[in-house]
Amino acid sequence: MAENSEQVRRAVVLLSGGLDSTTVLAIARAEGYECHCLSFNYGQRQVVELQLARANALRLGARQHLFLDIGLDKIGGSALTADIAVPKGRSVDEMEQGVPVTYVPGRNTIFLAYAMAWAEVLAAGHIFIGINALDYSGYPDCRPEFLRAFEQLARLATRAGVEAGRALTVQAPLLHLTKKEIILKGMALGVDYGATHSCYDPAGAADGGLACGACDACLLRRKGFAEAGLIDPLPYRHQEKEA
Amino acid sequence: MAENSEQVRRAVVLLSGGLDSTTVLAIARAEGYECHCLSFNYGQRQVVELQLARANALRLGARQHLFLDIGLDKIGGSALTADIAVPKGRSVDEMEQGVPVTYVPGRNTIFLAYAMAWAEVLAAGHIFIGINALDYSGYPDCRPEFLRAFEQLARLATRAGVEAGRALTVQAPLLHLTKKEIILKGMALGVDYGATHSCYDPAGAADGGLACGACDACLLRRKGFAEAGLIDPLPYRHQEKEA
Repeated sequence: MAENSEQVRRAVVLLSGGLDSTTVLAIARAEGYECHCLSFNYGQRQVVELQLARANALRLGARQHLFLDIGLDKIGGSALTADIAVPKGRSVDEMEQGVPVTYVPGRNTIFLAYAMAWAEVLAAGHIFIGINALDYSGYPDCRPEFLRAFEQLARLATRAGVEAGRALTVQAPLLHLTKKEIILKGMALGVDYGATHSCYDPAGAADGGLACGACDACLLRRKGFAEAGLIDPLPYRHQEKEA
Repeated sequence: MAENSEQVRRAVVLLSGGLDSTTVLAIARAEGYECHCLSFNYGQRQVVELQLARANALRLGARQHLFLDIGLDKIGGSALTADIAVPKGRSVDEMEQGVPVTYVPGRNTIFLAYAMAWAEVLAAGHIFIGINALDYSGYPDCRPEFLRAFEQLARLATRAGVEAGRALTVQAPLLHLTKKEIILKGMALGVDYGATHSCYDPAGAADGGLACGACDACLLRRKGFAEAGLIDPLPYRHQEKEA
């Protein structure tokens, strides 16, 4: 069955409120996709990201935005969802030693499974996800071969795949970009990076949810802005760590 | 890295409280697995199943039982999770025409993704799932090729797969059995089928959550008991439909 043009251009965009996924939304919009954003409250420490996600979805012209409460904190096993300390002040070399404690078991598989389900209900032919294999090689579920395996699974798991032979594509436009390249691309597309953060250990809402500036995610972000020759517009709790 | 015997024999068992998954738990226990049961409240109509799941997990000697609230009702697209009528009184031929409205988009993919995440945290090497390809061929995510694709995905998605080359197996011992064969196997293992039901449209809790007796799931169950020459111990709202 031929796809109609609406199916071709309709996409579910996984949006965390962080730098990467917000850039992905801007890219998908620039490519003309009708974007249905999906965000999760999964018991992570950085729920402030979800408020930023809502603002960014509106600002970048998403068609709709669905928030799901999912129970990853009950499964645990990660510094983001359980009582495990978030590492601070690590070098990139240290970050690349094995799978970090901030890895959340199954997270991207679960996110993509929900995105696939919603795409099926919406008759959307595409999922966008902001994963990146270069800057942070420690996560098993951020690798190209993982994405291809998920596409193969989606082909078998869905009504669309069975009845119409339509394939759902998983698009990861940041997969092979450095953080510097991601930031430059987003700036060209008008992303407001002052309204994004990806901190693993932000302050509580009472303190404005300020990013820490020293966890792996903050350090990679700051390194990216420095390499791009740009000022990171985000305030941090630990400004002295500025690269 | 060699697996130790505990990893080999530790399993996450997806348990709905229905006939199939309860039989799977009994099989896994009979095979000597340490069983960690996982049940979902996904906005389905048949929440009474979850109470039955709890009782069956205790009775069959599960090591622990985790209940997760997940937001599938917000995604909708199925008679089980949205305001779509559950078909009644259909013949098996009618049931086998295409994908039924009781199909929940992405459900088994999402269930397996959570099971994979928990298995990783528990260092369990196996997932058990009660899917069946024979009696009900309409669900795309009940096919052997779907399960194999999920195993391949899990190999790439997890820390265990990356660091140790350990594969998670997905075991579906009912995959090629008829309902009659499933029931006979469960009876031999001491399953109390009076405390299981899989009805798509049960009465409310105030009415004891009685199974309807006429939806596809009830009809297939009743047909299975009849073919096995056994009395189904479950009371139904529509006893006149008895095969």
